[in-house]
Amino acid sequence: MYNKFMRYQNKKVILKKRPDGFPKIDDFELVENIIDNIEHGEIIIEVIWLSLDPYMRGRMSEAKSYASPIKIGDVITGGAVGKVLQSKCSRFNAGDIVEGFTIGWQKFCKTSTHNIRKINPDIAPIQTSVGVLGMPGMTAYFGFFEICKPIPGDTVVVSAASGAVGQLVGQLAKLSNCKVIGIAGSEDKCSYLEKNLNFDLAINYKNQNVYKEIKSFCPEGVNIYFDNVGGKISDEVISNIAPYARIAVCGVISQYNLKQLELGHRIQRAVLTNQATVEGFLVFRFEQKYNIAINRMAKWLKEKKIIWKEDIIEGLENAPEAFIGLMNGKNFGKLLVKVK
Amino acid sequence: MYNKFMRYQNKKVILKKRPDGFPKIDDFELVENIIDNIEHGEIIIEVIWLSLDPYMRGRMSEAKSYASPIKIGDVITGGAVGKVLQSKCSRFNAGDIVEGFTIGWQKFCKTSTHNIRKINPDIAPIQTSVGVLGMPGMTAYFGFFEICKPIPGDTVVVSAASGAVGQLVGQLAKLSNCKVIGIAGSEDKCSYLEKNLNFDLAINYKNQNVYKEIKSFCPEGVNIYFDNVGGKISDEVISNIAPYARIAVCGVISQYNLKQLELGHRIQRAVLTNQATVEGFLVFRFEQKYNIAINRMAKWLKEKKIIWKEDIIEGLENAPEAFIGLMNGKNFGKLLVKVK
Repeated sequence: MYNKFMRYQNKKVILKKRPDGFPKIDDFELVENIIDNIEHGEIIIEVIWLSLDPYMRGRMSEAKSYASPIKIGDVITGGAVGKVLQSKCSRFNAGDIVEGFTIGWQKFCKTSTHNIRKINPDIAPIQTSVGVLGMPGMTAYFGFFEICKPIPGDTVVVSAASGAVGQLVGQLAKLSNCKVIGIAGSEDKCSYLEKNLNFDLAINYKNQNVYKEIKSFCPEGVNIYFDNVGGKISDEVISNIAPYARIAVCGVISQYNLKQLELGHRIQRAVLTNQATVEGFLVFRFEQKYNIAINRMAKWLKEKKIIWKEDIIEGLENAPEAFIGLMNGKNFGKLLVKVK
Repeated sequence: MYNKFMRYQNKKVILKKRPDGFPKIDDFELVENIIDNIEHGEIIIEVIWLSLDPYMRGRMSEAKSYASPIKIGDVITGGAVGKVLQSKCSRFNAGDIVEGFTIGWQKFCKTSTHNIRKINPDIAPIQTSVGVLGMPGMTAYFGFFEICKPIPGDTVVVSAASGAVGQLVGQLAKLSNCKVIGIAGSEDKCSYLEKNLNFDLAINYKNQNVYKEIKSFCPEGVNIYFDNVGGKISDEVISNIAPYARIAVCGVISQYNLKQLELGHRIQRAVLTNQATVEGFLVFRFEQKYNIAINRMAKWLKEKKIIWKEDIIEGLENAPEAFIGLMNGKNFGKLLVKVK
């Protein structure tokens, strides 16, 4: 039933000012507004889960990137899951559970439906649609299988290994009969990687020498490096690559908050002498194949061939602090904010 | 006719000590020895041309690389062309013109024939077998077509653009209907690239701002970068790449003579946001296809679709100085030493 007079008292987190380096609490502001009548082709969504992802930092800057900048005063754009309250689009009905990457940090979202997809709440908890069965899952699946091209026996290194993408990459590598080294930033995370996810080695970059640990664990070199971080950690991994190594550049979280360009090792010599390939990718290029991957990941999840760790923060108003924590590696698993 | 008592008074340039940074004249020494009876499977070659190539610097160091190090006291290993004087190998006869990449800096070479190939002196001057129809030609051909995957309309940047490989890459790019920017180190070289080789733009990195010149010439970005140099020039090109750029890492001459690792821009962010590919390659991986490329290059040469510039130094004893010049970009075109 569609009630055309329905109005919603919305709360939303907006970008108050552009972060200078690491984002701070007062770069954000919680404000209220009214969401009212929808036009043809639009829906109103009641937001249930927010997905907090490192790439969102790019949108908070003015610099040109693949994601367009958020304007000052606009709601923070990002993936979310919610329930359709009203619909003037024939593809959606009130009650549908939907996911979209531009819903953003708010309680209610009035939106056109171009970037909204309906999800089936019966195959897995609905928040997995922004996790293992959504963007991070697709990123891990296609980045690993299509960019890294694993062969059983390969040694795979993954950075930010307990994060949303990293935890999956490592498990997909184990499924592919590869040897897996994860790099993470705490003892708890490292212990989880080794004990729960069966990684062959976990390195705590905060108190271990990444270069030496990799060197002694696999003197024959790293065949695949799935890179979520860039920076010094990547320098140390790349100094250990094997001939014909494949390096997937998925994220550069170490660089997102720098005020000026950081210098590092030049990688060309290692790339040349090892005939290595370094490839940057954005998951959207694999869109045509998402369904194949979602079905396969859902099956593996059900069979417990892969497991999925979430880090849940309660309350829309806590999204900025949670996001700042994500930039500092405080999250342990996929970071979600439960809005409702 | 094979005369088993024949002895040759050889002259050869040996590695006297390992260069510390840039090689110096007294890292080399010209010595004499006697070349005498050959064993079954061996030949004696009278060397006519030496090929001086940047990669040879790697062999003069002890550090692990794709080319194994030259031992102190051993002849400088490198490509050369010569005439067979004696043969105890059924594949070769006295009088044959041959080429091989381990013949080295000497007047006579006694060698097994594993790495020796007979060349046809009728299709082109014999020294082209270490040039446009040899290793540099194959490097340009396969590096450009197979690694860079050109599409007509692409903007191609090539560094060390008047060198052995660079001059060919630019011409192959023009043949492919690409727009070509060459980077070189003198006004003469730049003028040659624009006037004789029809490059669309030549940048003299010694007195022009590479970043800005590229930016203003192709604001839409660089689709292909064929990199022979690494270092600061590459930083400036990579800051200008377009979405889906392909970067072939063919050589890193700016890095060969460094005493310690130089820091530079980290390229991961540009690679990620542009979904670019960076690939190191050694020409040997394309060995099975050399004949196709040689025939095609010979045809283009004959039809004057490509031209080929050599920089010829006379006399074996001048090889060390010529090589040092190569490290400093003094050569203009493919550097050869005429031994006989």
